[in-house]
Amino acid sequence: MTLAALADRVRRESGLAITARDLERILAALQASEDIWRIVDLAPVPMMATCQGLHALAEIGWVTWANGRVRLTPAGDQACRKLAIAAVRELKCPRCGGRGVELSPLREVAAAFHRIARGRPEASQEFDQGYVTEDSTIARVAFMWAKGDLAGKDLLVLGDDDLVSIAAALTRAPRRVVVLDIDPRIVNFVAEAARAEGLAVDARQHDLREPLPEELCGRFDTFFCDPTESLRGFLAFAGRGLAALRGPGCVGYLGLTRYEASLAKWRDIQRELLAAGGVLTDVVDDFHTYVNWPYIDAMRAWDRLPVKRVPGRDEPWYRSALIRVELVEAARVENPRYTGDIFNDEEAATT
Amino acid sequence: MTLAALADRVRRESGLAITARDLERILAALQASEDIWRIVDLAPVPMMATCQGLHALAEIGWVTWANGRVRLTPAGDQACRKLAIAAVRELKCPRCGGRGVELSPLREVAAAFHRIARGRPEASQEFDQGYVTEDSTIARVAFMWAKGDLAGKDLLVLGDDDLVSIAAALTRAPRRVVVLDIDPRIVNFVAEAARAEGLAVDARQHDLREPLPEELCGRFDTFFCDPTESLRGFLAFAGRGLAALRGPGCVGYLGLTRYEASLAKWRDIQRELLAAGGVLTDVVDDFHTYVNWPYIDAMRAWDRLPVKRVPGRDEPWYRSALIRVELVEAARVENPRYTGDIFNDEEAATT
Repeated sequence: MTLAALADRVRRESGLAITARDLERILAALQASEDIWRIVDLAPVPMMATCQGLHALAEIGWVTWANGRVRLTPAGDQACRKLAIAAVRELKCPRCGGRGVELSPLREVAAAFHRIARGRPEASQEFDQGYVTEDSTIARVAFMWAKGDLAGKDLLVLGDDDLVSIAAALTRAPRRVVVLDIDPRIVNFVAEAARAEGLAVDARQHDLREPLPEELCGRFDTFFCDPTESLRGFLAFAGRGLAALRGPGCVGYLGLTRYEASLAKWRDIQRELLAAGGVLTDVVDDFHTYVNWPYIDAMRAWDRLPVKRVPGRDEPWYRSALIRVELVEAARVENPRYTGDIFNDEEAATT
Repeated sequence: MTLAALADRVRRESGLAITARDLERILAALQASEDIWRIVDLAPVPMMATCQGLHALAEIGWVTWANGRVRLTPAGDQACRKLAIAAVRELKCPRCGGRGVELSPLREVAAAFHRIARGRPEASQEFDQGYVTEDSTIARVAFMWAKGDLAGKDLLVLGDDDLVSIAAALTRAPRRVVVLDIDPRIVNFVAEAARAEGLAVDARQHDLREPLPEELCGRFDTFFCDPTESLRGFLAFAGRGLAALRGPGCVGYLGLTRYEASLAKWRDIQRELLAAGGVLTDVVDDFHTYVNWPYIDAMRAWDRLPVKRVPGRDEPWYRSALIRVELVEAARVENPRYTGDIFNDEEAATT
């Protein structure tokens, strides 16, 4: 059976946008690790499709699992050789973690951030939370700084379980930092930390399904948002950010994974961002690493995992790209109220 | 005068797509260096616009130059403070140069490549050449390898003064490497090096304004091209690459600068790449550093430079992003013959 035919079958049976190249990515990951979380990590494929793909590869006898290990069978091994599919070759810079940014000039900011973040609220499934490592947050702020999007700028953070607002304000570089979050625990934590540290952060409770408050529209130079990854939800949240920007030359930062968004969805998202007046100046893969959240065994993908093992805190596997979009003309976005479930689609894995 | 009004004036007088944010980028660079080449390097703005912008800033008394140094005047300094424009803050990882890739596993490939590249042809203005540092070529190959686009794949290199084909073949990872270049010196050099080193590289002379040869259409998994940066020329060359790809899951790599392409042009390019069936999976800024070419004082931007000094070999200033585009559907491109000058537009600086 060809990979194209197998991808067709999986696509038909599951409704997932899996491709032959995705199966190749899974087979490349299988040659690099037998651990389910490393395989999911190394295969940049929607996690639901990775699970579905592993089941399909097992059905044709290329993959098997036992004792918690996922392995290529001799037939699978032979197929990889015949199809010239090599093992994943990681070549991430060990110093910057593949992010390209140097953190040592932010040493004191990082120290203060680590101290403050100790008391942070745990990730909650109710709000689709799951926060990035503290290093990822610092790297994100460093990246914004190096791009000229932080110093002297007005920054809006849409959803802040990553505590970007705190790290950004600790640099003392931005002119203004405003946070909107639906979760009162986050709002209170950020407000309390800002008060204790003397940081100019304005944290407000707000549900992003509601229109962006009028007084925040067109008032910011930079926004950050790590949206939910259904197409409708992602565009809704990104649209709030764009509505908050002053105009051309202003910038949005967005997180986007390969684990809950197929490249077909990536393309739909990019088309919308361009149509809204933006250009993609940076797309940095695997920029963010997430801390494993406490509800992993309650997430949607759990049932389809071939090996059901809760990963440890020291086994990160969920990563996302950092996308920087700069407006080249006034943002063309609406600011409507969204109703219904904007969080789920067939690629949703962690909700 | 506001930056927006000044940008308007420059845009009207020069026809260049300069923006207020571009002027801000120039002012941020001016605070970080008084050297013309560092200023051009640090301001991600079309070089023609940087030159034009410096002249305009001089007219309003914010910038001055003397003895080969370009400086903010006290009035310019004050304006930056008032507008909260801070100095450029470079935070590039010193290990990977901001590229995110670790090169030490390619140590032997790099050593062989450095040895071979010693005899390379010098960059020629006739063919719009200007090659990247050897480290940049190695990093590019490492990046392709880590993305799964090299091992076992058929690679097409369109224009190869960077000698990507040699570095790629030295890894012994690709199945097939084909090079097309208009310059017989490059074709001969690559063919000769391949013969001497026993590398499977097929180098052919070809003018990319001519249609891609039929027998190469739809036959490759990966292409690399560092196109000329006029909009028409960039899309023409990128289209040849896309025409060479087998289909969904196949990948193109393109270089693109900020020095000869405004973000408005970037956006036009991205729209076309998406419309052609692709998605942008990676956009890594400043991935490539170029070796200063011998015809710098004969290039188009020279006349507009406020300070006319030829930079040394150890003063790199011209950089480009690496863009990875993956097909999510069959490529929708034509393969026509192009006539007329496809190399120049108003942003062209180095031709």
